[in-house]
Amino acid sequence: MTNTQSEVQTVNTPAVLVDIDIARRNIARFQAYADQHCLNVRPHIKTHKLPAIGEMQLSAGAVGITCQKVSEAEAMVAGSPHILDVFISYNILGSEKLERLAALARKVKLSVVADNITVIEGLSAAFASEPSALRVLVECNTGADRCGVSTPKDAAALAQQIAKAPGLVFGGLMTYPPIDSGTAVECFMTCARTLIEAEGIEVPVISSGGTPSMMNAAEAAVTTEYRPGTYVYNDRSLVMRGVCAWEDCALTVLATVVSVPAPNRAIIDAGSKTLTSDLLGLEGYGHILGRDDILLDQLSEEHGRLVSNGAIGLKVGDKLRIVPNHACVVTNMVDMVHVVEFQKPIVAWPVSARGKIV
Amino acid sequence: MTNTQSEVQTVNTPAVLVDIDIARRNIARFQAYADQHCLNVRPHIKTHKLPAIGEMQLSAGAVGITCQKVSEAEAMVAGSPHILDVFISYNILGSEKLERLAALARKVKLSVVADNITVIEGLSAAFASEPSALRVLVECNTGADRCGVSTPKDAAALAQQIAKAPGLVFGGLMTYPPIDSGTAVECFMTCARTLIEAEGIEVPVISSGGTPSMMNAAEAAVTTEYRPGTYVYNDRSLVMRGVCAWEDCALTVLATVVSVPAPNRAIIDAGSKTLTSDLLGLEGYGHILGRDDILLDQLSEEHGRLVSNGAIGLKVGDKLRIVPNHACVVTNMVDMVHVVEFQKPIVAWPVSARGKIV
Repeated sequence: MTNTQSEVQTVNTPAVLVDIDIARRNIARFQAYADQHCLNVRPHIKTHKLPAIGEMQLSAGAVGITCQKVSEAEAMVAGSPHILDVFISYNILGSEKLERLAALARKVKLSVVADNITVIEGLSAAFASEPSALRVLVECNTGADRCGVSTPKDAAALAQQIAKAPGLVFGGLMTYPPIDSGTAVECFMTCARTLIEAEGIEVPVISSGGTPSMMNAAEAAVTTEYRPGTYVYNDRSLVMRGVCAWEDCALTVLATVVSVPAPNRAIIDAGSKTLTSDLLGLEGYGHILGRDDILLDQLSEEHGRLVSNGAIGLKVGDKLRIVPNHACVVTNMVDMVHVVEFQKPIVAWPVSARGKIV
Repeated sequence: MTNTQSEVQTVNTPAVLVDIDIARRNIARFQAYADQHCLNVRPHIKTHKLPAIGEMQLSAGAVGITCQKVSEAEAMVAGSPHILDVFISYNILGSEKLERLAALARKVKLSVVADNITVIEGLSAAFASEPSALRVLVECNTGADRCGVSTPKDAAALAQQIAKAPGLVFGGLMTYPPIDSGTAVECFMTCARTLIEAEGIEVPVISSGGTPSMMNAAEAAVTTEYRPGTYVYNDRSLVMRGVCAWEDCALTVLATVVSVPAPNRAIIDAGSKTLTSDLLGLEGYGHILGRDDILLDQLSEEHGRLVSNGAIGLKVGDKLRIVPNHACVVTNMVDMVHVVEFQKPIVAWPVSARGKIV
């Protein structure tokens, strides 16, 4: 990729571009690894929010998809007749969400998580009179300190609660681990599984996730299923970690230089409304392809500021492609993405599951 | 505001709430100051992106509105028959945007900015055969180091270029100044106006902006018009600067506690997809109303992590109201906001100008 592709440059800016040939290659690469290690793949669609890419992941061999909220799952299911198995990796609470969850479960195979008894009670009340039981996995904290029970013993206790709750069936164990935590996942999950099986309860799925460590997913041999998200597009944070190269980044932001107010400063028409303020520990808000010497040092909502040590060598009207720090959050900013195949823009896709927060 | 209003708590979470009575009071407060100091008010609608609130600002006495992009202006004009005077404070480039700008100029009184000759040439080409000339202001850099010409002499040179360009008329001077820069604005603008008037060109408008310094706007006596944006809602960054109090914050995020995985840690269902990662120099991502002891220390897309030194005293299902660091960017995350009047939810408004990036 360079900054001189004339056809791509005809797109009105700022725009989010998806190089679909690169995304296809990224999907195939991890699927091959997973197939080799007998791991099921259940991609997290938060990165693309597009039914069409969900279908590409299923065609490649994924067993289903992962969503984070009920509304996101609704949008994905509505957008594709091929999305028939959905895991919502979130504690779901509240009558409106539970009603929508039950309606969704009448259409597709559905599973969710719980890390506390309040969530289990709510799910059970909503599913007790439904035609099919809801699969509920126990979320486990293996070091990320977000959601999840803290110990294998707590996981086993919740598994028992789920197993005996009307309308529910115990679906297994799930974690969103910190990076490079294969050993922690292996220890926690093996122990929890042993405790649960000792109670006569089967553990059908042990689900882990995260793109940075995905090519080592098999190190935690207890894992049966993996949920990578960002791998489909990759981003600057993953390049900086050494997980991929710029050539593997399928999502870029196309921007136009709107002002060159000083010899070493230029302003582009992409700001935090496109690139977002996510830093992920990095300096600057994105990488200008082909211009390692430029720092994107400041964002307003509609302005991005580029600075260089020497003359910046840009003129008003120039177009640049930027790899954002974090692909997933950029997807969520825009109503549509421009699909590019082998450097040619071919179609614009509405981002069906954008902004689905409930 | 407390965390115990039962009617507000019926809204499905996460949700962006707008206390319309507070917004009305905020609008009236600055309009009264401006009226007293003979300043025109032209609010920046980036903060609310709602035609209905634009109408409230006009009813209070605003002379028109400010938008940042052509698409944002289109959405505002389409949303209200009362929005008839729009200033787009951005360098506009490219044939598609220029065509849309010309179409908009046939409907409402329109003005834009330029800080370079390339933009002026593009605007002139687009408006040379239009029925009405386009007002173009020169954007001046008074210290923010974003867009804008660097010296009054450069401003005067561009004013001359605009004045002689077919289809354009010189509309005045505009700046987005750094905070507390009244003297810098006064010096730059007075000097630029003198140089321009010496060429026989009138300077009809000198436009400044920014909520943090708005109650000192009259210190730069040269200013004729002020463009506050965030003042309509206020936010945590403005409270921390001492510009307003929590009671003046009209935009809040309602969130539900979905997990209490440790005695001093709780997880809410609002993450960066609602609150955004904007820090604006602060520690943490928002203020929990009524709970000064809690730090919102980490966001994922759909999770917000709350930590406290002692026991956090929250249970799964509790609802909290959060003042975000930056109100404008939160507005842009959601398709609708829930309008609350005197603590009662009364209506949901679609955010008409959300996601308008081009």
